[in-house]
Amino acid sequence: MEKMKRAERMVAITQMLMSNPNVLTPLTLFAERFGTAKSTISEDLMAVKGSLLLSGQGRLETISGAAGGVRYIPEISQEEATRFLSKLAERLSEKGRILAGGFLYMTDLLYDPSILRPLGLIFASAFRKEEPEVVVTIETKGIPLALVTAEALGLPMVVIRTGNKVTEGSSVSINYVSGSSRRIQTMSLSRRALDSKRRVLVIDDFMKAGGTALGIKNLMAEFEADVVGTGVLVEAQLTLEPKLVEGYLSLLQLRELDLSGGRSSVVPDALFLKRL
Amino acid sequence: MEKMKRAERMVAITQMLMSNPNVLTPLTLFAERFGTAKSTISEDLMAVKGSLLLSGQGRLETISGAAGGVRYIPEISQEEATRFLSKLAERLSEKGRILAGGFLYMTDLLYDPSILRPLGLIFASAFRKEEPEVVVTIETKGIPLALVTAEALGLPMVVIRTGNKVTEGSSVSINYVSGSSRRIQTMSLSRRALDSKRRVLVIDDFMKAGGTALGIKNLMAEFEADVVGTGVLVEAQLTLEPKLVEGYLSLLQLRELDLSGGRSSVVPDALFLKRL
Repeated sequence: MEKMKRAERMVAITQMLMSNPNVLTPLTLFAERFGTAKSTISEDLMAVKGSLLLSGQGRLETISGAAGGVRYIPEISQEEATRFLSKLAERLSEKGRILAGGFLYMTDLLYDPSILRPLGLIFASAFRKEEPEVVVTIETKGIPLALVTAEALGLPMVVIRTGNKVTEGSSVSINYVSGSSRRIQTMSLSRRALDSKRRVLVIDDFMKAGGTALGIKNLMAEFEADVVGTGVLVEAQLTLEPKLVEGYLSLLQLRELDLSGGRSSVVPDALFLKRL
Repeated sequence: MEKMKRAERMVAITQMLMSNPNVLTPLTLFAERFGTAKSTISEDLMAVKGSLLLSGQGRLETISGAAGGVRYIPEISQEEATRFLSKLAERLSEKGRILAGGFLYMTDLLYDPSILRPLGLIFASAFRKEEPEVVVTIETKGIPLALVTAEALGLPMVVIRTGNKVTEGSSVSINYVSGSSRRIQTMSLSRRALDSKRRVLVIDDFMKAGGTALGIKNLMAEFEADVVGTGVLVEAQLTLEPKLVEGYLSLLQLRELDLSGGRSSVVPDALFLKRL
């Protein structure tokens, strides 16, 4: 009976921690909630930690001291990430995804929480060690991807607006040449949206020539931000032309886009899979 | 020892289910993973179900039969929702949130995963019984809110574009008068983004006169969609003028906006709190 109570507590603790990922919870909170000694909670947590260890889906992080506690860090195993990206590449290579103008239709996948969740975990595990403080993206299609990444890392998100739509006080605007349209465009960010000198992770859905990524980099310089990483879901590798930015990370590569046949070829980035 | 194994399994099962909310997992998958009989897993699940019951943070739903299994439905308790909305209303009433033009600055909160997560759960619990099949929003600021709601309900999201930016094959456009600008604007949705005759839940961040919500309703009619619910985070109640739409649900109400004093007053919707 005593043992059963323990199991119940362990499940309840797991639920509390997983419902608030990345949030540090002091042990006293559990002790109060369950009416037990802190030492008992400590033992429960050790057991929970062990049980979570093998799944590859996430782990407990304990921080000792007066300001300490425990938090749940969601993760994805290398095996699951590889399998997921291969499957996603296959779906993006399906017939009928080529749009007029040579675009790849990805919106159905980019707005699907069951696809986004693992993508957020993959970006998070790739960039966690760079210790970003905020995830930055540009509207519109990159927003869900940036949000799930921010959620997996426990960070806020900042969204750059295209054009001059910012109505939020003074803003910084820069011009950039988007790879897809080859036209000069404007992107803006409200001054109050981002403090200066932040460590920034840039997330976007697609990179063609890298013009948008370069624009974001230049805009971030105006905020004295340190861009500690840039991640894109799909990178077009249709020409040998080098990109306008360096040091980014792409999960998938668009290798072929046959407009007349309506066929595309998307493959996982081999280098990235190795890094996982 | 045997008991400990059971507790470990219960934690691992909880983690697997919570990592894939709303996804039905067959019992055989657990039996294979843990090398135990299905009857043992059944007992584990009963115990897990009981442990989760009291938290109000989520529950297990079991579906029997050959195509059956178990899934985790994330939830928020009435008490937590009430406390959270009161706190959020306070933060929105802070000095310095009034922007030129009489707008309320909410972006910092709308892009913060720790704020979004409970909001998604609140919208989900309010609309789950309407059995929506897809969550619809309009760019840009409503996207994160719609996404967390979609995630909490296990549904895909669809984003309406403003203007005529749709490059995804044939699209449907309609004109609408936005309450904030009082100008005629255009919203568009690609034909392939939404199947016809879907049950649709509309989520947005702000409602002033209801012009955008009316526009979405009209656009949805073009897709023969059944709008089973409309939820907005903040509804402006600054005048006695009736809204252009009916039957929506708002979590918070903006009651006062004192431009000269830079003060606003936001309160939780009393009717909504009662319904929770």
